Amino acid sequence: MENTSAPLAFLSGIRIVDFTQFEAGPSCTEALGWLGAEVVKIENPKLGDPGRRRRPNAPDEDPWYFYIFNAGKKSLTVNLKSPRGLELVKDLLRKADVCVENFAPGTIERLGLSYEDVKAINPKIIYCQVKGFGEGSPYESNLAFDMIAQAVGGTISVTGEKGRQPVKPGISLGDTGTGMLMAVTILGALYKRRETGEGHRLQVAMQDAMLHYMRTNLSSQRRTGKVVERAGGKVSGITNAPSGLYPCKGGGPNDWVYIMTSRANPEHWSRLMTLMGHEELINDPRYATPADRVKHEADVDAIITDWTLRLSKHEAMTKVGGVGVPAGAVLDTMELQNDESFVKRGIMQTVEHPKMGSYKMPTWPVRVDGKPPTLVRAPELGEHTEAVLVGWLGMAQGDVEKLRAEGAL
Amino acid sequence: MENTSAPLAFLSGIRIVDFTQFEAGPSCTEALGWLGAEVVKIENPKLGDPGRRRRPNAPDEDPWYFYIFNAGKKSLTVNLKSPRGLELVKDLLRKADVCVENFAPGTIERLGLSYEDVKAINPKIIYCQVKGFGEGSPYESNLAFDMIAQAVGGTISVTGEKGRQPVKPGISLGDTGTGMLMAVTILGALYKRRETGEGHRLQVAMQDAMLHYMRTNLSSQRRTGKVVERAGGKVSGITNAPSGLYPCKGGGPNDWVYIMTSRANPEHWSRLMTLMGHEELINDPRYATPADRVKHEADVDAIITDWTLRLSKHEAMTKVGGVGVPAGAVLDTMELQNDESFVKRGIMQTVEHPKMGSYKMPTWPVRVDGKPPTLVRAPELGEHTEAVLVGWLGMAQGDVEKLRAEGAL
Repeated sequence: MENTSAPLAFLSGIRIVDFTQFEAGPSCTEALGWLGAEVVKIENPKLGDPGRRRRPNAPDEDPWYFYIFNAGKKSLTVNLKSPRGLELVKDLLRKADVCVENFAPGTIERLGLSYEDVKAINPKIIYCQVKGFGEGSPYESNLAFDMIAQAVGGTISVTGEKGRQPVKPGISLGDTGTGMLMAVTILGALYKRRETGEGHRLQVAMQDAMLHYMRTNLSSQRRTGKVVERAGGKVSGITNAPSGLYPCKGGGPNDWVYIMTSRANPEHWSRLMTLMGHEELINDPRYATPADRVKHEADVDAIITDWTLRLSKHEAMTKVGGVGVPAGAVLDTMELQNDESFVKRGIMQTVEHPKMGSYKMPTWPVRVDGKPPTLVRAPELGEHTEAVLVGWLGMAQGDVEKLRAEGAL
Repeated sequence: MENTSAPLAFLSGIRIVDFTQFEAGPSCTEALGWLGAEVVKIENPKLGDPGRRRRPNAPDEDPWYFYIFNAGKKSLTVNLKSPRGLELVKDLLRKADVCVENFAPGTIERLGLSYEDVKAINPKIIYCQVKGFGEGSPYESNLAFDMIAQAVGGTISVTGEKGRQPVKPGISLGDTGTGMLMAVTILGALYKRRETGEGHRLQVAMQDAMLHYMRTNLSSQRRTGKVVERAGGKVSGITNAPSGLYPCKGGGPNDWVYIMTSRANPEHWSRLMTLMGHEELINDPRYATPADRVKHEADVDAIITDWTLRLSKHEAMTKVGGVGVPAGAVLDTMELQNDESFVKRGIMQTVEHPKMGSYKMPTWPVRVDGKPPTLVRAPELGEHTEAVLVGWLGMAQGDVEKLRAEGAL
């Protein structure tokens, strides 16, 4: 879809050595890739990023996860445990602007690629680390994955139905949410480096990153003095009604619509009641102010539900949105994947893969001068080994073959 | 805490005219502020950003939300509907590198500050818009707030207990999650602009931004061919056990621990069983492989629960983490707010406010050369009107007083 996307070259010329795996690190370097940086993923020659597969020690059987978090990158395989392989990576790091890693605590240091090691060979490098827990935390040597970050970062505690067990937010915020904060900081460092030439060490912990997304909850707690409780479809601490998820015709698991009246706009209530044929309730003293409606929230919700149950979620969204009140149908993953609007606007793009055929995925969702960046597919394992060694290090074809024979690649 | 933070000047010299309100926009410009940009918030003289209060048309009663999303900014009050006020803002825009707005659709254009208007007076500006729905979407003129974005962006559909109603993830990802993607893109544009001097128009829709955080779910769906269902404390599509939330001693609403064995590390199971005194189960054929354990997941979960129920969530986390298996206690908002580790590491900082006394809040969680940036408090309404008009536009004190008398400020 040439007319709905355009290649983005904001970071053209920026070289990134990417040691990341799974999602928190890869989502970060991928963001820089969307902006035009050259991202070279360093992968082990046997199996590569464990995010490439679902089964340990087995070849790719489910590469979709990998494709989605590694769009536009190059793959270079190298044996980091061979002295020659390590030397090669150091040569790449000498030419790099940024390197990023999210290995288990201590791993990159054991490989001989600590911040001090890399700074010694390239003082201008921006050296970035993503870990589960922060340096100085009692848990700093612990492993973490997305769900662990969401437990210790609080997002699980505030998610779930009222009075019932906590649930994990269904998105991998512990990973991608952390990756975005590191990407922001790397870009700040790169901006300054154009002026100063200075390198820096950047570190983020997934637990700490979750606090950034918990700030609305922390502000609610400050007001009430109480732990923020789970509120189901509602928002804990919001003092306005109606606001919440309402069931629609069909009765399927996602036949729900979110309707929200804003405390900043008192007209939302009267517009809703007019739409729903209840003009007589607009000035009813039980519902006159947001505080009144909160007091009678169960009644208010029953009035709304009586109306939404007669409509599909799309009809309800269209009608409520049409009178200027915020509304959104709960869309499921299949509805999102098949939504034509995303394709027309370049937010979802399709790409050909030599082995897997074509696939469609979300691209970087910010438009630049009207268009999101053009999707470039994720690399096959080792696809760019030779191209990068020739391009970055000026090697000859024969050198690369020799290294391969030596077991360094 | 001077030794746990340091001012960050990556973006020193960058001037941002900030028309944003509530959270999606403010979280974006605040991130640029953490990096050292000068962010001038344009607020209406009467009440300012509606995020400053919980009651419509009333003065501040609950500024914590505002403080958290506007740290380090300056506040300039101006009446955008007075011709002189508008002219002043245009003068500021002439001096600005970036402007950001997240008004309701059509508002900025009606004010006479559309992209074309601003580009005409400052072709180098990076002009940024955050809306609920994307240009070209059937809903592009609809209002949206965080929860609407999370409905139409799919995050609600995948959150909740298995077989029960959807719930809203307890974090305001529709807002802050969108703000972070815009911040990344602005920084890319700023980086390039140092070379080219070119301005750009950037646009993001909250619905589209949610897709970025839904990508793990979309990859799971691609594998199974089915809509991703809600999975409570578990992760839909993960084919490994044990993994999930387990109840702990105490029985309180957040007395739970997340324990997760990785498919990439087969030793997690044997380490867990050794820790729990069940060496006999390590090679039990019912539990020998991840696939076997998934088949007997209810039994596996019962074995784990029998052990976790005897310990506090902190003890369970420490013991499981101690044998190299990922584990995290479900921390609630009060535990996070009072956690000494965040203070020691500069991730939470305390600041004095002239009216509200001292308050403690999370800072930008990425450390630069070992330290997060130093917290600077959010501004009072109009606190920097004079300083900015003098500093940016070279006005004299008397000019400012005259403008105030005219009702432009």
